[in-house]
Amino acid sequence: MENKAIQDKWPEIGTYCWGCGRNNEQGLQIKSYWEGDECVCTWKPKRYHCAYPSRGCGGIIATILDCHCLNTAASAAHRAEGREIGTEPPIAYATGSLFVKFLRPTPLNRPWIFRARIKEVKGRKTTVSCSLFVKDKECATGETVNIRIKL
Amino acid sequence: MENKAIQDKWPEIGTYCWGCGRNNEQGLQIKSYWEGDECVCTWKPKRYHCAYPSRGCGGIIATILDCHCLNTAASAAHRAEGREIGTEPPIAYATGSLFVKFLRPTPLNRPWIFRARIKEVKGRKTTVSCSLFVKDKECATGETVNIRIKL
Repeated sequence: MENKAIQDKWPEIGTYCWGCGRNNEQGLQIKSYWEGDECVCTWKPKRYHCAYPSRGCGGIIATILDCHCLNTAASAAHRAEGREIGTEPPIAYATGSLFVKFLRPTPLNRPWIFRARIKEVKGRKTTVSCSLFVKDKECATGETVNIRIKL
Repeated sequence: MENKAIQDKWPEIGTYCWGCGRNNEQGLQIKSYWEGDECVCTWKPKRYHCAYPSRGCGGIIATILDCHCLNTAASAAHRAEGREIGTEPPIAYATGSLFVKFLRPTPLNRPWIFRARIKEVKGRKTTVSCSLFVKDKECATGETVNIRIKL
């Protein structure tokens, strides 16, 4: 595993997202790291990130899944050119669509582990699949379609 | 339009959700109201609910869409029995799946208006469709499948 998270490589303009921006003080500040072909985000929810007491809010799960997949897509696009986010010219993506299937209530008292993989790269579109695990239980699974945008 | 939001009718157990709970002080505290066959949620984002400066975070959009659709489904189920949320016995739903398509960047300087409709009720499953408008522009559209759960 690399020492530096994908989110810590972005040039400043890309660091204010509520879900993943390192400079958004009110945000979730998720961190994503490659582990082989898998991109992994481990995140510790707070008690108030609930749907009802002690179970995780679906919107927070969707937010992390969305941001983690987008970071995965953008990082993979840079890597396909043999370089990292933060090198010139920047490659940026937006989320075109997001799908999440909630498989079971998600506990709040343990870290949430999101495991993402590139499913397909086709022209400007990258499809990323991702699942959320708590301990060994898969609590949610989903997919994003990320679209390369002009800067 | 009714005076009382759906979220203000829930018994206390249902009031802690980060997206829609009236008793979650750190949450978004959205409010949903019926206007004829449409259920409407108007919400004013803060500057930090961004993806990048001045544009809305997809995760926040997904969260509101999810919670607003779930409240719509639960309220409709009570109404189908000629009563309101808060009357006995309670009817509860969970989100089974969430789909959001992002159509254009969403401005942060105007209210977000989510318009939801019941698309289908089939056994324990209610499908709700919803779009996000800013002024007259549709910025996102999506759908949830909500599942009636035993209490």
